[in-house]
Amino acid sequence: MKVFIIGTGLIGGSFALDIQQEYSEAIIYGIDNNPAHLKEARELKVIHHEANFDDLKIADIVFLTIPVDKSLSVLPLVLDTINDNALVIDVGSTKQRICEVVNEHPKRRNFLAAHPIAGTEFSGPKAALKGLYKDKTNIICEVEKTAFKLQEKALDIFSKIGMRIRYMDAVSHDKHIAYVSHLSHISSFMLGKTVIEKEKNERDIFDMAGSGFESTVRLAKSSPAMWTPIFEQNKANVIETLEEYIGNLQRFKILMQENKFDEVFEEMQNTNHIKNILNGIK
Amino acid sequence: MKVFIIGTGLIGGSFALDIQQEYSEAIIYGIDNNPAHLKEARELKVIHHEANFDDLKIADIVFLTIPVDKSLSVLPLVLDTINDNALVIDVGSTKQRICEVVNEHPKRRNFLAAHPIAGTEFSGPKAALKGLYKDKTNIICEVEKTAFKLQEKALDIFSKIGMRIRYMDAVSHDKHIAYVSHLSHISSFMLGKTVIEKEKNERDIFDMAGSGFESTVRLAKSSPAMWTPIFEQNKANVIETLEEYIGNLQRFKILMQENKFDEVFEEMQNTNHIKNILNGIK
Repeated sequence: MKVFIIGTGLIGGSFALDIQQEYSEAIIYGIDNNPAHLKEARELKVIHHEANFDDLKIADIVFLTIPVDKSLSVLPLVLDTINDNALVIDVGSTKQRICEVVNEHPKRRNFLAAHPIAGTEFSGPKAALKGLYKDKTNIICEVEKTAFKLQEKALDIFSKIGMRIRYMDAVSHDKHIAYVSHLSHISSFMLGKTVIEKEKNERDIFDMAGSGFESTVRLAKSSPAMWTPIFEQNKANVIETLEEYIGNLQRFKILMQENKFDEVFEEMQNTNHIKNILNGIK
Repeated sequence: MKVFIIGTGLIGGSFALDIQQEYSEAIIYGIDNNPAHLKEARELKVIHHEANFDDLKIADIVFLTIPVDKSLSVLPLVLDTINDNALVIDVGSTKQRICEVVNEHPKRRNFLAAHPIAGTEFSGPKAALKGLYKDKTNIICEVEKTAFKLQEKALDIFSKIGMRIRYMDAVSHDKHIAYVSHLSHISSFMLGKTVIEKEKNERDIFDMAGSGFESTVRLAKSSPAMWTPIFEQNKANVIETLEEYIGNLQRFKILMQENKFDEVFEEMQNTNHIKNILNGIK
């Protein structure tokens, strides 16, 4: 089984490691436009071989794990190049545009649109982790457009590495994910910015910040190169979530200004049951 | 050494556990206006004895670990009751008002104003943790107003349980802590609210949310009873941080609306060095 990983970073590298573990016969080929990353991925044994685009002809499975703006141009080329039985899986955080781009492609049935809800705030081959996907949700969009045998192949991999599958249309995916993922990143980046701007003397942050602050701004360590195109592709949904978030913050501020601390209490009380929701998240 | 813990929850209970560990001779007395908590604290061996307010006469050390609005009325009564050599430590998250309240108290020199930057999103005696304070920062305000011998006594405890000490005036404390702690809590509560409002069908959140979301909304599990009076006491500072945070979010939204994604990238890039700052936080 010849598996190609296009983009040998956190997401692609972690798939490579799990597939090596679960499929002893798998040979992992890496493709990356950053030669240093490619070399590093090979040295870390994330991949077995460095490869280039033409080698995709021999691929059985291709994982496309690059920033979502790059995917839009690369995916059609990948589909042009692969053989008729190959499976191509894209794992980007937005799904509507990528599905549109290949909707009429002659090899549309070789493509599976997925979004594994997993990751860390780190990037590059060194960030690849064994078991990253265990017990995580994988959202598959427009599954009916993928050839049945290739669906089975994909599900076999996802099942072996421990993921649970949810099916969703691409438009709903992008709308919901704006709330539970994209907005969190912006809230975190802007929180980091607000504090850094104020506390020019960084020792003050260092000394006074605790694990609560660390937790809330963790996502501000994320890669801007990865996230900018996500926000661009999901612009309308993200702006909607931002407006609602800003509105809620403003109402909270006004309650404080008007000394309505009973209502401040209620605002928090009403949100407190997020405990129960979060208990289900790994 | 007779140690009284007024408020046998997460913060007070964790001090009780560490003091038991470090001082074999310590006898821990608990006072709590919730009889169920008091009983639970004793059953969990967080405290040795249930006590009441009059017993404070025999105290060597008193930890006041109750919501910051309650502290304002309770601290003067504690100081009225204790003997002349006792040390009273308040550990609330706001320091300006509590310091003002006892500024003219005849036993002001028996009082030490502290803020250990430690905690979890849980509360009650069950939430008490051994080692919660290890390697954490403890901010002490107006140290010069505490009797020197009592300062030494307090520092001995803080040092034995592994805390590092920073000194600060109460006004600066409240201003800085609004940025690195209070704002994080509001951003988290409002993020939770925004998502819950949108996703009435909670299964959708459950299925699509990942560890990133979990991390950003973790603080929304915090106790409203504890946090409402903190926001009330630190109202002016918290409103200032909220206005700056909302302004940053609005600017980010406008950059997106105007398709200035180069600047969106830069906004994130500029905040990315928070990595280095956070490396110093336990």
